[in-house]
Amino acid sequence: MAYPRFVEIHEEGPREGFQMESRLFPTAEKISLVDALSATGLKKIQVASFVNPQKVPAMADAADIFAGIKKYPNVRHTALWLNKRGILTAINTPGVDVDGKLIIYTTERFCQANNNCSLEEHLETQRQWLETYVANNIPLEAIYVCTAFGCQMDGPVDIPQLLSSIRATLDLCAEMGLGVPAVVLGDTVGWANPDEIKRRVAAVRELTNGARVGLHLHDTRGMGSANFFSALQEGVDLFDGSVGGLGGCPFCGHKDATTAGNVCTEDMVQMCHELGIETGINLELLIEASLMAERIIGRTLTGRTMHSGSIESRRQLALKSKTQTA
Amino acid sequence: MAYPRFVEIHEEGPREGFQMESRLFPTAEKISLVDALSATGLKKIQVASFVNPQKVPAMADAADIFAGIKKYPNVRHTALWLNKRGILTAINTPGVDVDGKLIIYTTERFCQANNNCSLEEHLETQRQWLETYVANNIPLEAIYVCTAFGCQMDGPVDIPQLLSSIRATLDLCAEMGLGVPAVVLGDTVGWANPDEIKRRVAAVRELTNGARVGLHLHDTRGMGSANFFSALQEGVDLFDGSVGGLGGCPFCGHKDATTAGNVCTEDMVQMCHELGIETGINLELLIEASLMAERIIGRTLTGRTMHSGSIESRRQLALKSKTQTA
Repeated sequence: MAYPRFVEIHEEGPREGFQMESRLFPTAEKISLVDALSATGLKKIQVASFVNPQKVPAMADAADIFAGIKKYPNVRHTALWLNKRGILTAINTPGVDVDGKLIIYTTERFCQANNNCSLEEHLETQRQWLETYVANNIPLEAIYVCTAFGCQMDGPVDIPQLLSSIRATLDLCAEMGLGVPAVVLGDTVGWANPDEIKRRVAAVRELTNGARVGLHLHDTRGMGSANFFSALQEGVDLFDGSVGGLGGCPFCGHKDATTAGNVCTEDMVQMCHELGIETGINLELLIEASLMAERIIGRTLTGRTMHSGSIESRRQLALKSKTQTA
Repeated sequence: MAYPRFVEIHEEGPREGFQMESRLFPTAEKISLVDALSATGLKKIQVASFVNPQKVPAMADAADIFAGIKKYPNVRHTALWLNKRGILTAINTPGVDVDGKLIIYTTERFCQANNNCSLEEHLETQRQWLETYVANNIPLEAIYVCTAFGCQMDGPVDIPQLLSSIRATLDLCAEMGLGVPAVVLGDTVGWANPDEIKRRVAAVRELTNGARVGLHLHDTRGMGSANFFSALQEGVDLFDGSVGGLGGCPFCGHKDATTAGNVCTEDMVQMCHELGIETGINLELLIEASLMAERIIGRTLTGRTMHSGSIESRRQLALKSKTQTA
C-alpha cells in the first residue's frame, strides 16, 4: 500500500511529560511549552489531565494552564480524563477543546486495574461517556483501545480478543446512533512489532468497514520507529506522539518498567519529511520546542533529532560550506 | 521480499563505547564486558582499536584487553584499524581475529579529513591494505562504505556517486584477483531513511552481481529501527550493532552532533525474535551484558529493551501470574 500523503500527529508531550516526572513544575513553564508547540503547525495538543489532584498532583494546575495558554486558530488544546467527572470538568474549564474520545480496554485485569470493573461492566461506563458527549454536542471522534497489542497484566491479546472489545463498543455506538470516525490502537506496554501493526490495522479496518485507524505507539523496546514506518506502509495517517519522547518513567532503570515514552514527535516528523510525506509541521520550530522541554524538565530527553539537528538543516549547512570553499 | 531466516549481528559496542567516553576505564572492566558478550551467542565482537594511543588514549590498552579476554569457540574477537600500521599491529597482537575489511569513502572531504588524501589517492591505500591481507593469508571479507547515505561535510551523496566509489574498489579487487563477499553500507552521519535503504541495497546488489549487502546503522535521528526493519524487508541479513546503543557522543547535547550510537544490538535482536527471525543470540544474556555496560560506563544508556525487559520474559510473567491467581 502507498504511504499516506499527509500524516496527522497529536501531541501528548505536555500531559505525558509533566505527569511522569517526580517533581512539580511551575505552571508558567508548562504554558511556555504549550505555546511553543502551538506555533509549530501541530493541530492537536493534549495539554493536561483532569484527574484527581490528590493522586496526580502534577495536574492540579490544569485549569490554570488552559487559562494561560495562547489560543491559535486551527490548534485544538485537549485534555485527558479517565471518568465522567473528568469530562464534565473539561467541559466546564475555559480554553479546553473537548474531543469526544472513548477509552476502551481489551483485558479483564487491565480494565479492572484502571476502572475497577469488568470489561462487560465497562460498557456501561462507555455509555455514560457517550451520553455526556451527546448531551453537550460533542461529536464522537475516536475510540482509543488500550493494550491493543498485549497486556503486561493479562499477557498476549490475540486479534479475535482485540476485535471483540472493539466490536462491543461499535455495537454500543450503533445502538446510540453514533458513527465511529476513528479507532486508535494503543501499544500501551510496548509489545507491538511491525508485523502485528500490519495485521491489526488490517483487521480493524475490516471490522469497522474502513474507519480511520490510528496508532498510539510507545518506544518501550526500540521498535517505535519501525512500528511507525510499518504503519506508514499501510497508509496509516493518524498518530499520537510526544515531543522529545517525553513521558515514560525516568526512574524505572532496571526495574520492570511497564511504560516508556511515546514515540518522539519530531523524530516521526523527520522521517515523514524524508519520505516525502507532509505533516504541516515546521520541524525546526518543533526541535526548538523539544529543547525547551528538555530545559524545563532538566534531564536529557530521549529524542534524537532534537540533539542532532534535522537532516535538511545539515544538508544545507554542508552545501553552503561547499559553495564557500569552492 | 521475504525476511531473512537468520540475521548476523556484529557487535561493536566495546570499541565504540569506551572510545567515545571522556574518561578512561580499567582494562579489567573492558575485559568483563567482552567476556559477557562472548557468552551471548554473538559470533563477532569488535573489541578495540589499533590506533595512535596519543590520539585515542582509551585504546592504549588494546593488546592487554585481547590478552585478557576468554576465547570462545566460534566467537571472533576483532579490532578496528585505520591504516596499514594498525593492520600490522593487529596481526602481531595475540588474540586478535583479523578480519579482512576494507574501509572506503564516497566523498572527497570525508576522505581527506580521515586519510589526508583524495578519493583517487585512497585507492593506493586500499591496494596496500589488500596486499597486506594477501601477504598474511587473511581473506578479504567485506568492504565498508563510509557516508554511504550522505556526508555531513560534503552534503548529499547520490546513488551514482555511491556506486562509483564501490565500483572503483571492486575493479581494484578484481585486478588483484580478490572476490568481494560483502559490501556494508555505513550510515555514518545518520541521514538514511527507510526508502533510501531499499534503493541503495538494491543498487549495490545489482552492481556487485549479488554480493551480500550489510548495513552499519546509527540511530542519529530516531530512524535506526525503521531503517533496520526496512532492510529486513529486503532480506538484508548482516548488521553492525552496539550493545546498549553504546557509542555516539554523550557530550554533544545541543551542539552539532555528527555522530550518535549504532543501532542498539539487543533492540535489533528483540525485533528479530518477535518477527520470527533467528539471531543465534540469547536475548536475556545480552540484556545482562548491556546492563553491565551501563554499570561500567556509569550513565543511562540509550538501549530500550535493556530497561524494559524482553517481551518474551514479560509474556511469561503475565501468563504465570494469571495461572497462579486462576
